[in-house]
Amino acid sequence: MFLHSLRGARLAPARLPLARYIATKHVVPDPMTGELMSSTPDIQVNRLEVTRHPNPATPPPSNTLVFGHTFTDHMLTIPWNAVSGWGTPEIKPYGPLSLEPSATVLHYAQTLFEGMKAYRDEQGKVSLFRPDMNMKRMNSSARRIALPVRALALFISTMKERVADAYAYTRRRSTARHCSISSRSSSASTSTGFPKEPGHSLYVRPTLIGTQKAIGVGPPNEALLFVILSPVGPYYAAGFKPVALYGTTEFIRAAPGGTGAYKLGVNYAPGVVPQKAAGALGYSQNLWLHGPDHELTEVGTMNMFVVFSKEDGSMELVTPPLDGMILPGVTRDSVLTLAREHVSGVKQLPNLSENLVVSERSVNMKEIKAAAAAGRLVEMFGAGTAVVISPVNKIGYMGEDLHIPTGEDGMGPVSRPIWTELVGRQWGTIPSEWSVPVAE
Amino acid sequence: MFLHSLRGARLAPARLPLARYIATKHVVPDPMTGELMSSTPDIQVNRLEVTRHPNPATPPPSNTLVFGHTFTDHMLTIPWNAVSGWGTPEIKPYGPLSLEPSATVLHYAQTLFEGMKAYRDEQGKVSLFRPDMNMKRMNSSARRIALPVRALALFISTMKERVADAYAYTRRRSTARHCSISSRSSSASTSTGFPKEPGHSLYVRPTLIGTQKAIGVGPPNEALLFVILSPVGPYYAAGFKPVALYGTTEFIRAAPGGTGAYKLGVNYAPGVVPQKAAGALGYSQNLWLHGPDHELTEVGTMNMFVVFSKEDGSMELVTPPLDGMILPGVTRDSVLTLAREHVSGVKQLPNLSENLVVSERSVNMKEIKAAAAAGRLVEMFGAGTAVVISPVNKIGYMGEDLHIPTGEDGMGPVSRPIWTELVGRQWGTIPSEWSVPVAE
Repeated sequence: MFLHSLRGARLAPARLPLARYIATKHVVPDPMTGELMSSTPDIQVNRLEVTRHPNPATPPPSNTLVFGHTFTDHMLTIPWNAVSGWGTPEIKPYGPLSLEPSATVLHYAQTLFEGMKAYRDEQGKVSLFRPDMNMKRMNSSARRIALPVRALALFISTMKERVADAYAYTRRRSTARHCSISSRSSSASTSTGFPKEPGHSLYVRPTLIGTQKAIGVGPPNEALLFVILSPVGPYYAAGFKPVALYGTTEFIRAAPGGTGAYKLGVNYAPGVVPQKAAGALGYSQNLWLHGPDHELTEVGTMNMFVVFSKEDGSMELVTPPLDGMILPGVTRDSVLTLAREHVSGVKQLPNLSENLVVSERSVNMKEIKAAAAAGRLVEMFGAGTAVVISPVNKIGYMGEDLHIPTGEDGMGPVSRPIWTELVGRQWGTIPSEWSVPVAE
Repeated sequence: MFLHSLRGARLAPARLPLARYIATKHVVPDPMTGELMSSTPDIQVNRLEVTRHPNPATPPPSNTLVFGHTFTDHMLTIPWNAVSGWGTPEIKPYGPLSLEPSATVLHYAQTLFEGMKAYRDEQGKVSLFRPDMNMKRMNSSARRIALPVRALALFISTMKERVADAYAYTRRRSTARHCSISSRSSSASTSTGFPKEPGHSLYVRPTLIGTQKAIGVGPPNEALLFVILSPVGPYYAAGFKPVALYGTTEFIRAAPGGTGAYKLGVNYAPGVVPQKAAGALGYSQNLWLHGPDHELTEVGTMNMFVVFSKEDGSMELVTPPLDGMILPGVTRDSVLTLAREHVSGVKQLPNLSENLVVSERSVNMKEIKAAAAAGRLVEMFGAGTAVVISPVNKIGYMGEDLHIPTGEDGMGPVSRPIWTELVGRQWGTIPSEWSVPVAE
C-alpha cells in the first residue's frame, strides 16, 4: 500500500517502511527519500561562483529564433553526490559537459527537466510565470526516478534570486547580451539582450541528470543539475493555426503505474516515431488514446481540453483528471483555475459564458463523436508552456476525420477569453500573483 | 495499420506511406527509416583510427570486481549526423565524453544500449555469445526511437573483427592489461588481462545516444555510438542464491504500445524506485504483473520462466510471448531453443525430462497460485545476460508469500540441465554456432 502512495507522488518519507529500512540498513544516504541527507549540505547559495564568458556571442536577430536552438552565453551547474550532497553552484560560460561514458543518464535515462518562461513587460521588468509550480513538479519527478530531491527544495526557495543576480552579469557587461532574467540593475533595463519584440520570451530549462560512473541499475550516487536559457519567439507568429490530431491507439504515451505524471526524459524519446508517423499521414500531433474505451489523455506533449455544449444551455470545459497518466501542467492548472475563478465569481472573464461547468473527468472518443454528430462539440485545445493554447480543428480516428469547430481566428468561445487573461498575467499587463518578479 | 506494423518492429520502410512522405517532402535524410541514407556513407571500418592509452591502469584483482564499475583502458566511438552519416570510428583511451548541455539524450532520453559477454575458454580463445542477436535487437531499438539504423547494420556485420583487432593493441603491449576481446596474437594468449579466473568474462556495452544540440523534440540530427568494456566476475560466486520477488501491481515496467520490447534507456530509470521499494519489503526484485488478471511479464530486468507439472506426467516450460511488452532476451531465446531442441531430438539434454512441453503463452497469478496449491509448480527462474539463470524461491503477492520450490543447489529439474548446456556453449566447452570466435 505504501507503494501505491509512492505512485501518486504522495510519499511521506518519514512514516514509510522504505524510509525506515534505509535509515537502519544503509550507511550511504539514499537519494530517493532524502532520509539520511540531513547531515549533508544543501545547496550553498552563498558559495555561488561566477565566471564570465570571455567571448560573448552576438545575439541572432529575434525573427530568426527557432525554439531551443539558441542559448545564452552562460549556464548554471550544481553537482551532487550521495556522500557530501550538493557542491558549489557555478554560473559559467555555456559549453560542453564532461560526462563519463558510464554515466547512468546515458544508459538508463536518469534525467528529468522543467520548462518555464521568463517574460519582460513593457517597462523592462522581468518575471517568471508560476515558477513554484515547476519546482514542485521537479521535486516530484526527481523522487520518481531516485534523483536527489530534498536539497532541490531548498534550491527552489533560495536560488532564484541568486541565479537572476548572476545571469545579470551578462547584461551589465554589454548592451549586446541576450541572456538576463534579472532587472535588478535598473539603469540598464532596456539593454539586456532579452528579446525585446512582442511575444518573445526567455525559455528556462532546468535539467537534472544521474552521473554515476558505473552501469549498475540503481539510485545514482552522483548527479548534476544544470540550467540553460533559450530566447524564443512567439509560437504563433502569424496568428493561431489550429492543428490536426491523429487519434493514436497503436502507441502509448503513458499507462497506469507508469511515469506519465512526471516530467521525465523517458516520456519523450518514445513519442518521436509516433509523431513522425502521424505527420506522414497529414496530422500534426498524436492524440494519445488510452484503454479499450479510447479515453483522451494528452495531445503530443500538451495537456488537452474539450468544450461541450449541453442541452440545458450550459457549456462544460473538460480535461482528464490527474490520475497518474496526466502531466500536471502549469498551463493546464492555470486554465482550470481561471475558469473556476470565473464561475465562482472571484474574477469574471469578459466574453466568457456565465453558464460554464469546469470538469476534471475522463472523456472518451465515443463521447467526442456523439457530441460532434449532435453539434454539441464547441472546441478542443491543447495547453502547454511553449504554445500556451493550441486550437484543434480535426481528429483522424479509426479511418475517418472528425472535424472540430474553431473560431474565426482559430480560438473558440471558451479558449479565447481564458487565453486573453492568461497571457495578460504572463506578460504582466494583468497584475497577478502568478507573475513572480525576478530579483526586484 | 502501418503504425501497427511499426510497433512490432516489423517495419518494411520502402512500402510505407511514412517513408514515401519523407522521400518526397524532406530534403534532409531521416534517421528513422534510412530511406534517404543511401547517399551518405556507412561506417567506414577501414578508416578506423587507434590511439593507445599513454598511462594504462593496473587491473584490479579479479575478486574485487563489481559489475559495471571497472572499465578497460580503451573505448570505441563513432559519431553520426544526418547529413554525412557515420564519421570516423576511433579506438581511444577511455575517458569523458564531451556533450552539449542541449544534447537530446540529456533531456529526452534518446538512448539505447546492448549488453553481451565475451568469454575466454581454457585455451585462451575468446568468443562472443550470439552477438548477432544483440545487434539485431540494437537495430530494432534504434528504429523505435528514431536513432540511426541502417548504417548500424553494416557495423554489425563488419565491425566486430576490427574492434577486436584494435582492442588487441592493449593486450599486445602489456601483460598487465585486462581489456582484450581478441585472441589473434596467439603468442600472448594467456597475457590478455581478460580475467583468467573461472566464471569471469568481459561485458561488452554498446550504447547509442542522440546528441543533437537543440532541445526540440524530434529525430536527432546527430548521434554517437560508443562501446565500453567491463571485466566482470561470476554472478553467483558462492553458489546459486534463489531470489524473492515482489508481485508488483502498483508500478509497471511496460504496457501495450510502449517500449518494453526494446532495449531502451527509458525502460530502466523508472524501475529503480519500485526495485528499492520491493527491497525495503524484503524482496530482491519486482515481478512485473500486467493487467486485471495480473499476467506475469518480466522479473526485474530479466525474462521469466515457470515450470508446471501436469496431471498426465508431463512438464510445461512457460514464458510470456513476445507481444510487444517483453524484451526479446538472448538468454530467453537460448533457453527456449535448447528446450525445443531437446524435445524435438535435435540435441537431447542429460537429466532433462523427455516429457516436456515448451510454451510461449501468457500466464497469470491465478494459475501460479492454483499450481502452487496443487503441488504442480515445479520451479520459476529469471533469465538474462548478467545472471544467465536466476532461481526464484518466493513471491510476495497481495499480502501473502507464495513459496516456490527450488532444488538443493537452488536450481530445479528443468533449469539445471538447460543451464549446464547453456554455460557450456558460452564457455566453449560445448562447441556450438552460438559461440562466435573473435578475430580468429
